[in-house]
Amino acid sequence: MNAYVITIGDEILIGQVLNTNAAYIGEKLSSIGIPMEYMTVVGDDEAKILAEFKRATGLADVVLVTGGLGPTHDDVTRSAVCKYYNTDLIPDANVRANVERLMKHRNLPWTQAAEDQALVPRKATPILNQHGTAPGMWFEENEKYFCVMPGVPYEMKAMIENFVLPRLSKLTHGVILRHRVLKTTGIPESFLAHKLGDVNGLTQGARLAFLPSPKGVRLRITANAPTIEEADKKLDEVEMRIREKANKYIYAVGEIELEVTLSELLKQKQLTLAVAESCTGGLIGDRLTNIPGSSSFLIADVVAYSNDAKVKYLNVPESLIHQHGAVSKEVAEAMAQGVRNTAGADIGISVTGIAGPSGGTPEKPVGLVWVAYADANETISLKFNFGDERLRVKERASQSTMELVRRKILNIEIAEQLTTD
Amino acid sequence: MNAYVITIGDEILIGQVLNTNAAYIGEKLSSIGIPMEYMTVVGDDEAKILAEFKRATGLADVVLVTGGLGPTHDDVTRSAVCKYYNTDLIPDANVRANVERLMKHRNLPWTQAAEDQALVPRKATPILNQHGTAPGMWFEENEKYFCVMPGVPYEMKAMIENFVLPRLSKLTHGVILRHRVLKTTGIPESFLAHKLGDVNGLTQGARLAFLPSPKGVRLRITANAPTIEEADKKLDEVEMRIREKANKYIYAVGEIELEVTLSELLKQKQLTLAVAESCTGGLIGDRLTNIPGSSSFLIADVVAYSNDAKVKYLNVPESLIHQHGAVSKEVAEAMAQGVRNTAGADIGISVTGIAGPSGGTPEKPVGLVWVAYADANETISLKFNFGDERLRVKERASQSTMELVRRKILNIEIAEQLTTD
Repeated sequence: MNAYVITIGDEILIGQVLNTNAAYIGEKLSSIGIPMEYMTVVGDDEAKILAEFKRATGLADVVLVTGGLGPTHDDVTRSAVCKYYNTDLIPDANVRANVERLMKHRNLPWTQAAEDQALVPRKATPILNQHGTAPGMWFEENEKYFCVMPGVPYEMKAMIENFVLPRLSKLTHGVILRHRVLKTTGIPESFLAHKLGDVNGLTQGARLAFLPSPKGVRLRITANAPTIEEADKKLDEVEMRIREKANKYIYAVGEIELEVTLSELLKQKQLTLAVAESCTGGLIGDRLTNIPGSSSFLIADVVAYSNDAKVKYLNVPESLIHQHGAVSKEVAEAMAQGVRNTAGADIGISVTGIAGPSGGTPEKPVGLVWVAYADANETISLKFNFGDERLRVKERASQSTMELVRRKILNIEIAEQLTTD
Repeated sequence: MNAYVITIGDEILIGQVLNTNAAYIGEKLSSIGIPMEYMTVVGDDEAKILAEFKRATGLADVVLVTGGLGPTHDDVTRSAVCKYYNTDLIPDANVRANVERLMKHRNLPWTQAAEDQALVPRKATPILNQHGTAPGMWFEENEKYFCVMPGVPYEMKAMIENFVLPRLSKLTHGVILRHRVLKTTGIPESFLAHKLGDVNGLTQGARLAFLPSPKGVRLRITANAPTIEEADKKLDEVEMRIREKANKYIYAVGEIELEVTLSELLKQKQLTLAVAESCTGGLIGDRLTNIPGSSSFLIADVVAYSNDAKVKYLNVPESLIHQHGAVSKEVAEAMAQGVRNTAGADIGISVTGIAGPSGGTPEKPVGLVWVAYADANETISLKFNFGDERLRVKERASQSTMELVRRKILNIEIAEQLTTD
């Protein structure tokens, strides 16, 4: 059983929208052992879409299509599907009720476009769209499974999780392919590879991939077996051997962000956190508040972008900024202590640095970042050089600050070089 | 002249990394009139990579390859290229100097892996990597152009901009295809389509696409002509007709974020800004500080996540929170005024809402967000329903808050419904 994924939209070919959908679908199919063998992109052109549908159903058992289902003139997928399956559109009561619910929830009036979104091809099983007005469509013919979904990622994702995966999982047989990702931070790729040593000894038949990013290196282990249990046992063994050599760098198993790990840790230890950001500009707060329930540990995050704000909101002594500069060990530590005290939190953390492109000097170049941690017993700080790209500096600084908190809470050694990648 | 883009990496096929590279390359090639006709993904397998290289050079004039150039065992692209071009690896002094510069800048010691990254195929023109250790490689044979770049997006992007595009631009002839994007916010897709009316009358031979997202609808106009000037003239005309009908929703021309438009506006008017965030958790500050020079207008951003923090940092009266709740018109306005006063800024803005998934009630459901704006003369606030997905609520709330500031500064009417999409 194999899969063919078609992404529809000129916007992908000319690069104005990223093809996140094909990636997401590849991951999900892979997790249930269906290999994605074909990944193509087609423009908003009915003839080309029809040709692609024919090729796909010829080559694969499962065809998943996303995009082109919106209410405007450039959305041609639904009419192409009707032609391909030689069927017409009929109103569907459940789909209509769903569209009504959404319009009402958003306080939007009913329109002709809404009426039109409630129509589905007669031969299709409609898939309700939790987050948008365009329904998905599922076709089964001659043991081929053909599914069309909207291109809006979170709408498509809900359909994959709630409808497509449960249906396809029942159909897979044979060899299971399982992946596991160990997320590390605080060590560059080549140093991690050196620490792990001989890959064959480590994997013993499984596969290992190093996937670097500014937030850290992801280690992906892949194993085959006749059953999920056997494949997972192989993954367990490789993970154990990796942990023997590099456990302290691993902050998560699976595609989990550091803010999730840290949030769970703070909740579990019943610790509260206050953040003082300068060069990261709110990124740490944004990441932490992406996690539901962050209000149980995050008291406040003061983005003290100006020197005045550092003095007013965080009680950093003006003389300290004057003497050492805003980007200094002394000011970073005073910011962490200051936000901890003013917010009344168990832990205060701070970041101050030069994100660039301007503002650097020979002594304090762009990329220089000081990070500090303060609790009731101690204040510590670390100095980093995060390169010369503004967004990468922010990303690395946010990651290192959170990693510092994780290590302090878990009593893990703080390396001199806590660089993320 | 056409192009074939190959993305190398199992991580793309199984969906653990998004194929942002192909999208970026498609956009850039499109901007110089070279259509991307083939977009494929290959796993980390030398034989499959070689087969793909052969197919690509058979079908296209320009072949661009990304990925698989790192220092670990799963990076096999360089050896595949050497086999394909029947060449060997030699040290390159410029590449070595670049690797040394990077290691030094990041305070990393010299290793064997670094030594190895300084080798390039004898037949290739090396492309220096500004941001990483793996160089790119450029081959020209029989009027075919073949280029291999690292998979790390910002490393690849610098090579495309500084090396690949200048070389390819010299080679294109004939019909020019030009795109222009108008970014709108504050109006849903179907309402915008209704406002614009008949598409053919609007475009007169050009093409128009509606690209919705939680931040707003992007309108992409596409025109063909023998020269850039003629194509741009067509685009100008369509843009003018769109602006006649929907000018107030357009905040940018091109792939520019609202934070860029707003930053420029604040700088131009010499206005300072202070932000008080609750449910957005730092996202507004993060977005504004992504823009170089944001320190010239952003004084502070207080993420007052707890009620205590709203009282302590923003002087919101405790009684107000008690009486109306933290998510209310009254508290939103007090937050905007409070942050404006404590930070000493010209404009204070605030967001308070229920991002979910929990915390909703029948009167105040998940997705309810109050946004407020305060300057020396007035305080205004708006109420929104942003749906039930935490990250979408944050994204829409940040966008609407910034759009409110843009409209106030430009004296544009504030619609009752300023929903983003």
